[in-house]
Amino acid sequence: AIIPDQGHSCSDSPHKGYVCRTTYSLKSPVFGGFSHQLYHQSSSLVEEELDPFSLVADELSLLSNKLREMVLAEVPKLASAAEYFFKRGVQGKQFRSTILLLMATALNVRVPEALIGESTDIVTSELRVRQRGIAEITEMIHVASLLHDDVLDDADTRRGVGSLNVVMGNKMSVLAGDFLLSRACGALAALKNTEVVALLATAVEHLVTGETMEITSSTEQRYSMDYYMQKTYYKTASLISNSCKAVAVLTGQTAEVAVLAFEYGRNLGLAFQLIDDILDFTGTSASLGKGSLSDIRHGVITAPILFAMEEFPQLREVVDQVEKDPRNVDIALEYLGKSKGIQRARELAMEHANLAAAAIGSLPETDNEDVKRSRRALIDLTHRVITRNK
Amino acid sequence: AIIPDQGHSCSDSPHKGYVCRTTYSLKSPVFGGFSHQLYHQSSSLVEEELDPFSLVADELSLLSNKLREMVLAEVPKLASAAEYFFKRGVQGKQFRSTILLLMATALNVRVPEALIGESTDIVTSELRVRQRGIAEITEMIHVASLLHDDVLDDADTRRGVGSLNVVMGNKMSVLAGDFLLSRACGALAALKNTEVVALLATAVEHLVTGETMEITSSTEQRYSMDYYMQKTYYKTASLISNSCKAVAVLTGQTAEVAVLAFEYGRNLGLAFQLIDDILDFTGTSASLGKGSLSDIRHGVITAPILFAMEEFPQLREVVDQVEKDPRNVDIALEYLGKSKGIQRARELAMEHANLAAAAIGSLPETDNEDVKRSRRALIDLTHRVITRNK
Repeated sequence: AIIPDQGHSCSDSPHKGYVCRTTYSLKSPVFGGFSHQLYHQSSSLVEEELDPFSLVADELSLLSNKLREMVLAEVPKLASAAEYFFKRGVQGKQFRSTILLLMATALNVRVPEALIGESTDIVTSELRVRQRGIAEITEMIHVASLLHDDVLDDADTRRGVGSLNVVMGNKMSVLAGDFLLSRACGALAALKNTEVVALLATAVEHLVTGETMEITSSTEQRYSMDYYMQKTYYKTASLISNSCKAVAVLTGQTAEVAVLAFEYGRNLGLAFQLIDDILDFTGTSASLGKGSLSDIRHGVITAPILFAMEEFPQLREVVDQVEKDPRNVDIALEYLGKSKGIQRARELAMEHANLAAAAIGSLPETDNEDVKRSRRALIDLTHRVITRNK
Repeated sequence: AIIPDQGHSCSDSPHKGYVCRTTYSLKSPVFGGFSHQLYHQSSSLVEEELDPFSLVADELSLLSNKLREMVLAEVPKLASAAEYFFKRGVQGKQFRSTILLLMATALNVRVPEALIGESTDIVTSELRVRQRGIAEITEMIHVASLLHDDVLDDADTRRGVGSLNVVMGNKMSVLAGDFLLSRACGALAALKNTEVVALLATAVEHLVTGETMEITSSTEQRYSMDYYMQKTYYKTASLISNSCKAVAVLTGQTAEVAVLAFEYGRNLGLAFQLIDDILDFTGTSASLGKGSLSDIRHGVITAPILFAMEEFPQLREVVDQVEKDPRNVDIALEYLGKSKGIQRARELAMEHANLAAAAIGSLPETDNEDVKRSRRALIDLTHRVITRNK
């Protein structure tokens, strides 16, 4: 199995995200073996079968209602554009909110009396409202980036419906994205914690940097795994890792715990996107809610192809010609099928899923059942991210 | 002269901006006379001839250099896009930074010892650096909105050069705008004052709301002076008023002084935009740095035409047809020429310039020469806004 050579020098500040200079050749089996073992070992931790999403379902609907209020704009057309992806049925998996609500409980080692006595109905402590605030802000930032990305990519569908740029035009999509960013910035201010503002502002900047890396990469960069992983961190994992850390900061946790929360978010995000990129080859348009094979058709080179190129260097020439002659997509898929590209990409995703699970495993001990259940749910998410088919 | 009937009910919170239900018919001459008198009276306050921009010239260049550092992006193409309007020669008038630097001194009634002893070279007190931070953030927000507006309006030129969307394309313009917003949000966080974050986040939201009001207005709204003034507040005055207030908040000023700073910014911004809209009829493309008559050609109805319509109701029909048949622009200009439209718009601008000057006149007394000079410069700006021809 391949695992980023932990011995290799990574930039000391994890907040820089994924800037390790690493080689992706097959590493020592024993280390590879360890990663598999950890992965299976951690899954035995999951005594009772629990669904992370249902654990926070009540709070997710509370959060969705609050978000629909938060995106209400004075001007009707701006309101309907901003609310477009917060309406019931098109909110998507609410993956980020689920992570953050679970993380909020998982870090509440000093859970206030009021929480412990509560049954499973929604806790309303002031701290909990502020932690939910991070999830609301993260969803607004996430949707803002989707609206702008779809304008840039001229996308037709999103979450199984028409993209906003198709339904209301590019102008309203750009404005609605800016509107959501300004509401997120305002909501951040209301949390009265400038470290949290800085974390989420960094995440917004990374989204823009990642998108720019995708559309302005040189040929060398397009075929570099490091460039792909750094872009993937910026485009997907940074928002998850920085918002996880923001929850820890709001909870008043130690710097060590805040870094563990960050590491969980970073690795889960990388695993999530690696699987997304695999599904673009293996999933169907229907299951994905967006066109499949869209990456390679748009000249976006992802992990499966990058790994396949290590085995078949001539694949690079084929991929170069895709935009000129779409028939090259089929030739590229043939090479991919003959290679271990998909398998190696999946193993890399599993490595990051393991690292995410390990970060939860390293959190300070607790005997609070709520906290333990949330941590198991966070670990369970690291499995679901791998095994999902959409 | 026309003056918003101050007796009319305005929303109690000035931060809502311009939401007074007002009528713009000719009001009582005596009240009109007062406004003229205040305007002339205040101009005699200006003992020595001083140029507001040269008063802060050194600090403006310091600020420009800092801004060029602040917009440095990791990805080269994003860096050159984000820096595009911060390069020497295309920074525009730096009108907002000039206002904020003058306001910072004008409010420093308790000017620290270190400042008074200084000659006119740049003061480096920690408070001053934070006040300059507001100006840097305001310029980043302003340029971000220009980049997105030019994508929405398909603009060709800006500040006398090619617009960024023409030079680098819509994608990089949208991304550079988002990048500047995220850097502004991050810089706001660094000021560690969440009231200031909230003020500037509101200003960003108002920019988006104003732009949306412009592109989604109903026919009724297009021909309403209230709608036009509210949109003008959101699109132009809100950023100036909220950043002026942010400077006051950072200086630790009283709520009353903060409202005076807000009122100065609000009224100066309204006056500025009213004159901008007049210049679109009377200025030349060369002097404006952007195409003239662009508003009416794009179906944007501004004060001169709204006032002319009060005298010639048939002008509405003509303006309605402009987009179908551009020859209607000439017919509209004929009506405008026969009407008092331009004059009444200029008088309205002067009313707001007076209100801005009056806000400065109401600041607590001071005998500090630096503070007094800055206040005179702020009042001088209220004249220049009216008399400028570009």
